[in-house]
Amino acid sequence: MSEKKQAGGLQGVVAGQSAISTVGVGGIGLNYRGYDINDLAYKCTFEEVTYLLLKGHLPTQQQLDELKTLIWSKRYIPCKLKQILETLPKESHPMDIMRTVTSILGILEPETKSGQEYDISIRLISIFGPALLYWYHYSNSGIKINENTGKDSIAENFLKLYHLKSEIDPLVIKTFDVSLILYAEHDFAASTFAARVTVSTLSDFYSGITTAIGTLRGPLHGGANEAAMQYLEPLRSIPQADQFLNSRYQSKQLIMGFGHRVYKKEDPRSPIIKDFSLQLSKTQNGDPTLLAVSQHIEKRMVEEKKIYPNLDFYSASAYRQCGVPTPMFTAIFVISRMTGWGGHIIEQRSNNKLMRPVSDYTGPAKKQFVPIEMRNKANL
Amino acid sequence: MSEKKQAGGLQGVVAGQSAISTVGVGGIGLNYRGYDINDLAYKCTFEEVTYLLLKGHLPTQQQLDELKTLIWSKRYIPCKLKQILETLPKESHPMDIMRTVTSILGILEPETKSGQEYDISIRLISIFGPALLYWYHYSNSGIKINENTGKDSIAENFLKLYHLKSEIDPLVIKTFDVSLILYAEHDFAASTFAARVTVSTLSDFYSGITTAIGTLRGPLHGGANEAAMQYLEPLRSIPQADQFLNSRYQSKQLIMGFGHRVYKKEDPRSPIIKDFSLQLSKTQNGDPTLLAVSQHIEKRMVEEKKIYPNLDFYSASAYRQCGVPTPMFTAIFVISRMTGWGGHIIEQRSNNKLMRPVSDYTGPAKKQFVPIEMRNKANL
Ligand SMILES: CC(C)(COP(=O)(O)OP(=O)(O)OC[C@H]1O[C@@H](n2cnc3c(N)ncnc32)[C@H](O)[C@@H]1OP(=O)(O)O)[C@@H](O)C(=O)NCCC(=O)NCCS
Ligand SMILES: CC(C)(COP(=O)(O)OP(=O)(O)OC[C@H]1O[C@@H](n2cnc3c(N)ncnc32)[C@H](O)[C@@H]1OP(=O)(O)O)[C@@H](O)C(=O)NCCC(=O)NCCS
Repeated sequence: MSEKKQAGGLQGVVAGQSAISTVGVGGIGLNYRGYDINDLAYKCTFEEVTYLLLKGHLPTQQQLDELKTLIWSKRYIPCKLKQILETLPKESHPMDIMRTVTSILGILEPETKSGQEYDISIRLISIFGPALLYWYHYSNSGIKINENTGKDSIAENFLKLYHLKSEIDPLVIKTFDVSLILYAEHDFAASTFAARVTVSTLSDFYSGITTAIGTLRGPLHGGANEAAMQYLEPLRSIPQADQFLNSRYQSKQLIMGFGHRVYKKEDPRSPIIKDFSLQLSKTQNGDPTLLAVSQHIEKRMVEEKKIYPNLDFYSASAYRQCGVPTPMFTAIFVISRMTGWGGHIIEQRSNNKLMRPVSDYTGPAKKQFVPIEMRNKANL
Repeated sequence: MSEKKQAGGLQGVVAGQSAISTVGVGGIGLNYRGYDINDLAYKCTFEEVTYLLLKGHLPTQQQLDELKTLIWSKRYIPCKLKQILETLPKESHPMDIMRTVTSILGILEPETKSGQEYDISIRLISIFGPALLYWYHYSNSGIKINENTGKDSIAENFLKLYHLKSEIDPLVIKTFDVSLILYAEHDFAASTFAARVTVSTLSDFYSGITTAIGTLRGPLHGGANEAAMQYLEPLRSIPQADQFLNSRYQSKQLIMGFGHRVYKKEDPRSPIIKDFSLQLSKTQNGDPTLLAVSQHIEKRMVEEKKIYPNLDFYSASAYRQCGVPTPMFTAIFVISRMTGWGGHIIEQRSNNKLMRPVSDYTGPAKKQFVPIEMRNKANL
C-alpha cells in the first residue's frame, strides 16, 4: 500500500470511500446523492438539500414539513451562550465566532449517545446564523436580537436577522438559498476530510465540526470568497481591473476565486451563482459595475491562463448584492456545508477506521545526546 | 499517484515529508529531531524538549533560561477568558474546555502576521494548565485560583495548581515531567495530521490547534489513557483482572492502552513510563495493587494476544499516583503534544500545499430529479 513519493497535498490520493457526492467524475459535473447540482439549485430549497445530504434521499412533503418544524424549534440561543457572545469583541473574525460557538455548544449540549448526528446537525444549521448575528449586532450596536423570526427558511431567517427587517426582496432570498445549495457538499474537500480524521479517533460530533470550521477558514478553501471580494471591492472600471490583473500576473500572486484541485475546467457551480449574481445586478440594489468587472476578470483568466472561476468568485458579488458584509461570507458557507459535514461524519462512523498515515522522514540521523552543561553552538 | 484500493484509515499511506520525529523506523524506537526518547526522558526536562521540537535543536543554558522566563510571563489568564470559564458547567469534559480555551484565545489574541508560531505555541503551553484548573476549581468549589505560582516548571505549576499546595513530592513532579516528554511528539498521529490539513488551507494557528485537540479527544487516540484508567480503577486483585480480561476477550472488545498503528512490537515509551509508575507505587502515596494488576494484564496481553501496551497504559497508573483525576488525563496530553503540533504547523507552512485527497465514489448513479409534489416512498 505504501508509496514513497506523492505529488504533495494528497493530490489524487484516494483517502477512502464515499457515497455522498461526485466531484468532477470524468472531469465535469457535481451530483449530490446522484442528483445533478443544476436540478437541485433550480428546483429545490436548501432545506430539501439538507435532508437529502443527511438522510440519503429527497424528502416527501411531510418529511420536509417535519424538518422545517424542527429547524424553527432549534434556533434559540441558550442563555449561557448569549452571555459568552456578549463578551466577544466586535473585531473578532466571524469564522472564529462560528468555531467558538460550536465548541461551546459541545459543552452545553454534548453528544451523549450514538444516533444523535441528525439532530445535532439540524441544531447547528439552525443556530449558526442566529448566534453569529446575535454577536454581530450586540458587539456593533448593543442590540440583543430576537433570534426567532417565525416560520422562515434558513436563508430568510439569516437575511432578516442581519438586516433587522421583516421583508426581504424575494430574489435576494432565492440567491442566498441557491448559494447555500451550491456550497452544501463537495466530497473530500479539506474541511470535510479533516473532520473525518477527527471523528475517526471516535471523538465527538462537535469536535468534528470545530475542525471543519477551522479548516474552511483558510483562503485556499472557504476563505476564498472573502479574499475575492477584497480585491473586487476597489475595482470600479475595466481599466482598473486590467491593472489589477496585470500586476498580479507579474508578481505571480494567486487570484482568489479561481482554480480548483479537482475541476480542471469549469466548476459546474460557477455558472449557476453567476446567473443569480447577474440577475441581482439588474435590480434596484444591484451593482452592474461589479458584475462587468467580474466578467472581464473571468474572461481574461480563462483566455490567458486557462484557469476557471470556482464557486467563490461569483459568490462574492452575489453576497455583496444581498447586502452582506465581506467578513461574513465564509461564515455563511459554514451554515451550508454543515449539511455535507454532517453526512460525512455519519458515513465515517458507519465504517470507521482510525485515519493515521505516515510521513517520509527527512530529518537528521541519530544524534549523540549532549547534557545541557556541555552544550554550545557547535554541538547542538 | 492515485491508487484505487487502500487498506483504509490511510494505513501505510505516506502523506508528506517530515523532519521532526521517527516513529518506529524499522519497527522500533522513537527519536525527536534525531535524539533517542530514552536520552530525552532520563536526561532532559520538558522545557528543553519544547525548545527542541519547536526550534529544531536543543537549547543552550541561556536559551533555556529565556524560554523559562517566557513561560512564566505567559501563564496569566485574560479577564474575559476567566469570565467565560466561570460560566462553563462543572460537568464539562476537560477536553472540551481545552478546545474552547484555544478557540477563544484565537479571538482574544489572534495571529496577525507570519512568524508568530513560536510565541503562540509557548503561550498555549503556558496557559493550558492554568486555564483548565481555573475552570476546575471555580466550577467545583467557587475558588478563583491565582495562576501564577512563580518560577515553576510546567509540571510543577500544573501539580501545584491542581492540588492547591506549595510543595509537591519531587518524584511526582519528575514522573509528570517525563510523561510530558513522552507525549510531546509522534509524527503524523491523527491529531497532528488533522492540524496539518487545517493549516494547509492557510488557516490560522489557533484553528490548527483546535482541530488537534478535538482529534486527540477520541478514545482511539489520546482518550485511551482515560479509557484505560476507567477499566483499571475497579480491578483490585489478580482474579478480578483475569475476569475482566476474559470477558473482554470473549466479547472481542478493545483493551484500551494496547496496540498501535505503527509499533507492532513494543512502544518504546511504555517501559519508561512503567519505570516511573513502578517507582511511585513503592512510595507512601503509591498504589502497588494497581501496578500488580497492570503488570498482570500486560503479561497476558503480550503472551496471549501478542499485543503490547502503548504509552497510554502505564500513563494511567502514573497519573493516578500523581493524584490527578481521570477526566484530566487527555487534557495533560494536550499540554505536552502542543509542542509537537507547533513544530508540525511550522513545518507544514514552510512548504505548504493544500491537503485535498479524493474519494472512491460508491454512491448511486445519476438519478432523475422528482419535484416535491410528485415524490412518494417509491421514487425517492
Ligand atoms: C484551489 C487551489 C488551491 C488548487 O490548487 P492545486 O490543486 O494545489 O493547484 P496548484 O496550486 O498546483 O495550481 C496549478 C497551477 O495553476 C496556478 N494557479 C492555480 N490557481 C491559481 C489562481 N487562483 N491564480 C493564479 N494562478 C493559479 C498555480 O500557480 C500553478 O501554477 P504553476 O504550475 O506555474 O506553479 C488553487 O487553484 C488556488 O490557490 N486557488 C485560489 C484560492 C481559491 O480560490 N480557493 C477556493 C477553491 S474552491
Ligand atoms: C491504536 C489502534 C487504533 C491501532 O489500530 P489499527 O492500526 O487500525 O489496527 P487494528 O485495529 O486493525 O488492529 C489489528 C488487530 O489487533 C486487534 N487489536 C488492536 N488493538 C487492540 C486492543 N487494544 N485490544 C484488543 N485487540 C486489539 C484488532 O482487533 C485487530 O484484530 P483483527 O485483525 O482480529 O480484527 C488499536 O490498536 C486500538 O484501537 N487500540 C486501543 C486504543 C488505544 O490504546 N489507542 C492509543 C494508541 S497510542
